[in-house]
Amino acid sequence: MKLWDKGHVPLDERIERFTVGSDFALDQNLVLYDCLASIAHAKMLQKIHVLKPAEFKMLQKELVAVINLDKKGLFKMQQQDEDVHTKIENHLTKKLGDLGKKIHTARSRNDQVLADLRLYSKRELQLIIASLLELSSALLHLAKRNEFVPMPGYTHTRQAMPSSIGLWVGSFVESLLDDLRLLWGAYDLNNQNPLGSAAGYGVALPIDRQLTTKLLGFKKLQNNTLYVQSGRGKIESVILSALLQVNIDLGRLASDLILFSSPEFNFVRLPEEFCTGSSMMPHKQNPDVLELMRGKSAMMQGYLIQIINVINGMYSGYHRDLQLTKEPLMQGLALEKDCLDIFALVAAKIKVNRAAASKACRLELFATDKALELAEKGLPFRDAYRVIAESKFDFVADPVENVKRKTHLGAPGNQCLGMAEKQILEHRQKLREERKNFERAIAGLTRL
Amino acid sequence: MKLWDKGHVPLDERIERFTVGSDFALDQNLVLYDCLASIAHAKMLQKIHVLKPAEFKMLQKELVAVINLDKKGLFKMQQQDEDVHTKIENHLTKKLGDLGKKIHTARSRNDQVLADLRLYSKRELQLIIASLLELSSALLHLAKRNEFVPMPGYTHTRQAMPSSIGLWVGSFVESLLDDLRLLWGAYDLNNQNPLGSAAGYGVALPIDRQLTTKLLGFKKLQNNTLYVQSGRGKIESVILSALLQVNIDLGRLASDLILFSSPEFNFVRLPEEFCTGSSMMPHKQNPDVLELMRGKSAMMQGYLIQIINVINGMYSGYHRDLQLTKEPLMQGLALEKDCLDIFALVAAKIKVNRAAASKACRLELFATDKALELAEKGLPFRDAYRVIAESKFDFVADPVENVKRKTHLGAPGNQCLGMAEKQILEHRQKLREERKNFERAIAGLTRL
Amino acid sequence: MKLWDKGHVPLDERIERFTVGSDFALDQNLVLYDCLASIAHAKMLQKIHVLKPAEFKMLQKELVAVINLDKKGLFKMQQQDEDVHTKIENHLTKKLGDLGKKIHTARSRNDQVLADLRLYSKRELQLIIASLLELSSALLHLAKRNEFVPMPGYTHTRQAMPSSIGLWVGSFVESLLDDLRLLWGAYDLNNQNPLGSAAGYGVALPIDRQLTTKLLGFKKLQNNTLYVQSGRGKIESVILSALLQVNIDLGRLASDLILFSSPEFNFVRLPEEFCTGSSMMPHKQNPDVLELMRGKSAMMQGYLIQIINVINGMYSGYHRDLQLTKEPLMQGLALEKDCLDIFALVAAKIKVNRAAASKACRLELFATDKALELAEKGLPFRDAYRVIAESKFDFVADPVENVKRKTHLGAPGNQCLGMAEKQILEHRQKLREERKNFERAIAGLTRL
Amino acid sequence: MKLWDKGHVPLDERIERFTVGSDFALDQNLVLYDCLASIAHAKMLQKIHVLKPAEFKMLQKELVAVINLDKKGLFKMQQQDEDVHTKIENHLTKKLGDLGKKIHTARSRNDQVLADLRLYSKRELQLIIASLLELSSALLHLAKRNEFVPMPGYTHTRQAMPSSIGLWVGSFVESLLDDLRLLWGAYDLNNQNPLGSAAGYGVALPIDRQLTTKLLGFKKLQNNTLYVQSGRGKIESVILSALLQVNIDLGRLASDLILFSSPEFNFVRLPEEFCTGSSMMPHKQNPDVLELMRGKSAMMQGYLIQIINVINGMYSGYHRDLQLTKEPLMQGLALEKDCLDIFALVAAKIKVNRAAASKACRLELFATDKALELAEKGLPFRDAYRVIAESKFDFVADPVENVKRKTHLGAPGNQCLGMAEKQILEHRQKLREERKNFERAIAGLTRL
Repeated sequence: MKLWDKGHVPLDERIERFTVGSDFALDQNLVLYDCLASIAHAKMLQKIHVLKPAEFKMLQKELVAVINLDKKGLFKMQQQDEDVHTKIENHLTKKLGDLGKKIHTARSRNDQVLADLRLYSKRELQLIIASLLELSSALLHLAKRNEFVPMPGYTHTRQAMPSSIGLWVGSFVESLLDDLRLLWGAYDLNNQNPLGSAAGYGVALPIDRQLTTKLLGFKKLQNNTLYVQSGRGKIESVILSALLQVNIDLGRLASDLILFSSPEFNFVRLPEEFCTGSSMMPHKQNPDVLELMRGKSAMMQGYLIQIINVINGMYSGYHRDLQLTKEPLMQGLALEKDCLDIFALVAAKIKVNRAAASKACRLELFATDKALELAEKGLPFRDAYRVIAESKFDFVADPVENVKRKTHLGAPGNQCLGMAEKQILEHRQKLREERKNFERAIAGLTRL
Repeated sequence: MKLWDKGHVPLDERIERFTVGSDFALDQNLVLYDCLASIAHAKMLQKIHVLKPAEFKMLQKELVAVINLDKKGLFKMQQQDEDVHTKIENHLTKKLGDLGKKIHTARSRNDQVLADLRLYSKRELQLIIASLLELSSALLHLAKRNEFVPMPGYTHTRQAMPSSIGLWVGSFVESLLDDLRLLWGAYDLNNQNPLGSAAGYGVALPIDRQLTTKLLGFKKLQNNTLYVQSGRGKIESVILSALLQVNIDLGRLASDLILFSSPEFNFVRLPEEFCTGSSMMPHKQNPDVLELMRGKSAMMQGYLIQIINVINGMYSGYHRDLQLTKEPLMQGLALEKDCLDIFALVAAKIKVNRAAASKACRLELFATDKALELAEKGLPFRDAYRVIAESKFDFVADPVENVKRKTHLGAPGNQCLGMAEKQILEHRQKLREERKNFERAIAGLTRL
Repeated sequence: MKLWDKGHVPLDERIERFTVGSDFALDQNLVLYDCLASIAHAKMLQKIHVLKPAEFKMLQKELVAVINLDKKGLFKMQQQDEDVHTKIENHLTKKLGDLGKKIHTARSRNDQVLADLRLYSKRELQLIIASLLELSSALLHLAKRNEFVPMPGYTHTRQAMPSSIGLWVGSFVESLLDDLRLLWGAYDLNNQNPLGSAAGYGVALPIDRQLTTKLLGFKKLQNNTLYVQSGRGKIESVILSALLQVNIDLGRLASDLILFSSPEFNFVRLPEEFCTGSSMMPHKQNPDVLELMRGKSAMMQGYLIQIINVINGMYSGYHRDLQLTKEPLMQGLALEKDCLDIFALVAAKIKVNRAAASKACRLELFATDKALELAEKGLPFRDAYRVIAESKFDFVADPVENVKRKTHLGAPGNQCLGMAEKQILEHRQKLREERKNFERAIAGLTRL
Repeated sequence: MKLWDKGHVPLDERIERFTVGSDFALDQNLVLYDCLASIAHAKMLQKIHVLKPAEFKMLQKELVAVINLDKKGLFKMQQQDEDVHTKIENHLTKKLGDLGKKIHTARSRNDQVLADLRLYSKRELQLIIASLLELSSALLHLAKRNEFVPMPGYTHTRQAMPSSIGLWVGSFVESLLDDLRLLWGAYDLNNQNPLGSAAGYGVALPIDRQLTTKLLGFKKLQNNTLYVQSGRGKIESVILSALLQVNIDLGRLASDLILFSSPEFNFVRLPEEFCTGSSMMPHKQNPDVLELMRGKSAMMQGYLIQIINVINGMYSGYHRDLQLTKEPLMQGLALEKDCLDIFALVAAKIKVNRAAASKACRLELFATDKALELAEKGLPFRDAYRVIAESKFDFVADPVENVKRKTHLGAPGNQCLGMAEKQILEHRQKLREERKNFERAIAGLTRL
């Protein structure tokens, strides 16, 4: 039975299929969170005397039972269930009679789904941050092992200046750590309690929104009840914007690796068990996993565009189109987790072909430094530049010595990898606390 | 067993899951087409004496059997099958031994998947065109029934000039018929045979690509074997670009209907069985189906962006990222079919509230025509405009008469709906022929 | 003076600046077309007796004078002119008094701007098609000169199968010719007369829209007056969708050239006068022009997204946001013209390093063909594949012979470049006719 | 003379025009910042004894002179200047001879342009944040003046529950303040010193990057020299992602205002001096400024897409395509500033039609509250819901009383506008400090 069924004309079945779409399947991800938010809501209803303590206990017990069923895969969403809120409320009513219906006092599916999505996103972001830190560590380890191993530094896909494996890989670590700042920013924006906004205009009961904020472990209350609704799609798109930056970084690293592992370059080697072959060409070892990684940022971009353009130009207040933001959000979060975990596997197995990387450094690569040497002897740099440009590069150069000689902050010879290491530790610490708080809130709600 | 398995190191299981992704599930849609393309390929191999007639017969019989299994849902793709090509070839080998392996002579999965996707897209586009014509007919019918029923014409979301229900609804019919031209353009681009390009560089056998072109019912051969590969993603994005135009039209019609069916406007009524309610607000009748329709163009846009950005900046030749174009293509085609069918249902049931639409026409709406009347009497239009602007609109006006008085081509009083009707008939005829050709090709291939 | 000024409260100056935006500058491109559409409109007004023949003559003469002033750069749009329609009408009124005001009878700026943009886009598309054909010819010429010059064929950025310079370059010619079909499709959609739709709801005068269609050289009338308005942004986005496909092709060719001209590959050489250097590194020869070419598809994509999302979800009827589609349309058209012309220059000057390209072909490249040879001798291909995979590629191979041996349609040894040549000629012929028709219409309108 | 000119073959003139593009014009915005970064770089070169104190003084004096010329509009970029770095260095060399050339020691245009853009973005973001705070204040003021003025609250574009003008307007204030958190996040990411990374691989001189960080007022050093290059486009896209959220908010408010100021709703009135008319329809008062505001988020989205897709899939290291990120960044920043300032003007002048807004509240609007009253008396909410749904809404209700009765946090009767006020003050304080620091750095560098 639909929560909004008034017993009149039933919804056309084809229309129902269209409006429900894949929502019922996506909502499987929300069962846990809908139960948690319902327990918090019920607890609050008890506090304001809408529910009696015994009533709360019965509801809580039943909701915890649903959580446990779901964990075992025994609380399956079907299309006719419409959505997770309806299914759970129907379940409660079946088990508890009228009491099951009372839990919907002072709330709407509009604030329910928002609460579910915020909790879901919070957990997923915690997992993503953990995976991002794993990948960062793996890359940092790779950088450290090859800190001063020379390789050509490229600009314009042309050899430009001497570089090192450490500098190259380390550049991704610093970039990912900057992404992490964006992720935490999105995490904080998401960490606001929407419950109690009902359909966007509040309710005529003295509900205690601070209490549900605390019970659910949110950092703050999202205040204005109408803004809560306007926040749908907004927070989702902020999350995906941050994830997209991660994907762009991963795509760039994948691009580099595809090129640098090609026979023409051969600076790195991918382990055979990570490569696929061709059904027609017996000799191929293809970097499929990296190519897919490269392509995934296009996927993420699509998800982001979908959310942005569902909300773009929309009036204030809830509209059903907002439902369409759920799928790209969930797809985006799952994609990110997957990409990070797979890339961490890859990063741990990449072999650097040190000899080849070093040997690939052509003499031209040292031209700038030679010009600079002349400049240090007093020639204006612009003139030194022209002298070297005409010298046809007949000089000798030692790549390792060159790399080590560049000792200013951030240069190949002074990469400050320890700084990245320190940051990773700090982020791990912050993540640990966030997870602990969240677990504590869940434990509090589900303790019978 | 993978088609490219050389018996060495197996692919890491997690990497395999990542690279296969949802491909195996999507490939369920391609079983029929992979079998058809395989039969055509085998027939051609027979003609060039790579296969004996009896061998072809055995392969054909087995492939027809797969088609029949698939129709009954008994040829299920699993993740370990990797893709449809592998699964079918493994099946053939299991049934026919070495003969099963011979069918892969002179082809690659690269041209196979392209052939499958072209055939799949062709069929789906035929279905979409059929649905689009259905919707156009339903709208045309609605327009005709209300051809001269007055309603306010809006610009800037403000009443501007008298209009009619017919003009308003008819504007969508003409727009959809223009979209149809784009769809046929995409259809034609897709109607090129990629088979025989192998991995993009042809094969050293005298294969007959004209023959497979004819057998599969393609309109022409896609010539350059490397261009065949570069066409991946390109044709997909041309298809989705055309579909997006349809979605934008549907979104606009949905927006109009949401507003015009609101109590503040009340020009049209949606049937109750197409509306959903609120779990909290007992009085609501919500146009969810239209809101979702409005939001779907954002989804389509996301799919398009995904395909565009997978191929953007890519080098020539096959890359695994191209696999990522399969999902958005299939999602886009399915979405369109769904939207058109649902909207045809809605269009057939919309009730026009003639009295309300007519009564809503405010006097200001006639101001331009009044100014024009003065202009006809010799006052320069710019001056007439100012006279009326200052008159405070104290004149009388009959909306129906006004609508009918505008008799130039395309105006409310002369909408030329018959032209649209004629075009619909022509498109139906063209579609009928296309479908017949396709059915004929399929029948030819599967006749044992 | 604004065309809509009623003599009351003036528009706030900051608001005016914001609403006019860059419109006034963009409208400089439309002066010619606004004059042409105005002449056609006036001629029609004469036919229906709103203007006397002498009045038409005076208006025509003044409008032709404006066209000539504009050619000399003496009819400059300023911000206070608001838009081209206002400026020209004010000019006419200044010159001809009340007669200047009469020309606005039976039209609105809404259909005026559409007529201007359609004519403008038509001319620009003709120029773009001409440039595309130039580039195609240049590439075809390059392909022919190097038809059978071997080079490695790549998949997954890995050497895959022997290919040829001709096949590689020819793949772009065929792709561009497919793009041309899309361009002609967009051209046709744009080739519809919007004049006479006024503000979207027609006018109460017996205007002759067929006449203006003929006078302006449009192929057909866009019938429904409200659809004319809904077509704004739609046609623009169809045009840019087609252009984007061209840009993606150009981007791919640029990507290939950047890689293949790098010292690591060295298959082609860019002329020195097309390369830029580095301010710091004396040895650099950078392919900046190609890198920008690669990046331009991102620009085009942005323009397309802008237009799509201005119209996405919009109600029927004119809205001021539509003005925002003008800039990306003009930017997109200009960008395309520029890219094609520059790339034609580059294509004409590329040097193929035949020895290097041929020498780069590694033995693995021939593995598939060797497997196929075994297959031809009766071994199932799958087994031959494994035999070769284990052979460590100890065989000899002649790249030129290999290339020439692949003689099926579209293969390296049988590229059918003549077909592309024939198509180019056909497109040139079609373009010539389209241009002639357009010139004839312009001559007819401006003949005093 | 180009900085990279080696005296050989000159760059083809058409290629030069294409590669320079609009860069020279955009670079006008960077003159100040290029001078500041150059002074800081020269000061650092002095510290490491590459320049003598007197040399630094001469360079500083000349660079300050350029800043002053630029302020007066007398340092005009031309196309042949290529870019701002070249023009300024040529200017220095003209004035100071060889000394002018020495300033380029230990830097590249790659890190120069990054430093310029970071400083430029920083200043623009400060201005944008100031404007955002202005608009927030204006809206807060509007909300406060109408805190408890009833209006219908909408969901699904249907009247849903009683709301208030204060709640509606206040929802945007809270949303904008959340956007501000994103803006500060982008601001912080941008607040990193890229100088000293040279072409991405550092320099073989003991440059002091901490010193330039301090001199230029950056909050921290961007460490890894290669990451500095990879940060191009990334930081830009993070900035535009944050701006896009602001534009979506503004677009939503514009959408609401367009609808609510229409005669059918009439809750608010736009001042006449902010409306435009029609050239054809004498009665129109069009909300053009709001429609453009609504459309601008599409523009911003396009700019973002452009930047994202220039960098998407790119290899590490500088590429010339990156130049293409400059224009959309500058357009995006300018657009935002403009939109915020214009909207603040509008917000200050909106008149609320209190009687109309209140009177528009239909009885159904109170149905939920009536159901809740029954629920409070013990009926399960689901049953109360059905009772009311069947009652045909024959009850009385006082909108003002209803609004005030909802007193939980964030509800119409308890909007907590003071919290927003407090936050605005805190942001103002933070902004003031940021601006002071920046001014102090500039003063330090330009003090002769």
